[in-house]
Amino acid sequence: MAEENIVYIGKKGTMAYVLAVVTQLNQGTDEVVLKARGKAISRAVDVAEIVKNKFVKNINIQNIAISTEDVPAENGETLKVSAIEISLKK
Amino acid sequence: MAEENIVYIGKKGTMAYVLAVVTQLNQGTDEVVLKARGKAISRAVDVAEIVKNKFVKNINIQNIAISTEDVPAENGETLKVSAIEISLKK
Repeated sequence: MAEENIVYIGKKGTMAYVLAVVTQLNQGTDEVVLKARGKAISRAVDVAEIVKNKFVKNINIQNIAISTEDVPAENGETLKVSAIEISLKK
Repeated sequence: MAEENIVYIGKKGTMAYVLAVVTQLNQGTDEVVLKARGKAISRAVDVAEIVKNKFVKNINIQNIAISTEDVPAENGETLKVSAIEISLKK
């Protein structure tokens, strides 16, 4: 998958990411993958549900995968952080 | 699925839910479903990953589903809240 089809969900408001996903789908992309870690996971689910229910009727949630990622902490140690990938496909 | 195979993830610490899941699996249950709404969704993913990676090696994430639920608010209106169900199966 091309890098531009991935939307990384972070600390912005939910609608900012909804807009990013809808924009990509309107530009001819058939599939968008939402990626989030830690507390942003809940927001990624919100984004997927809002896109599907309110903005893009012909899209389906094709796959949801969860995993654990190693993230370097400031003190040099490694933190384990949960992650989610939600694939939306027309 | 029997009600006792569902673990509802709320505001307690992550390890309280990990313990609940591991206890159920040790009592002979083959499948446990984690359910969470809103901000607890991130914690449900943490619980699933910790159970799988640290406590119960022979378990798989069988299915992950997301949805939108209607929750009555205090002012009589209805709020839409995202939800997740994560099925863990031996």
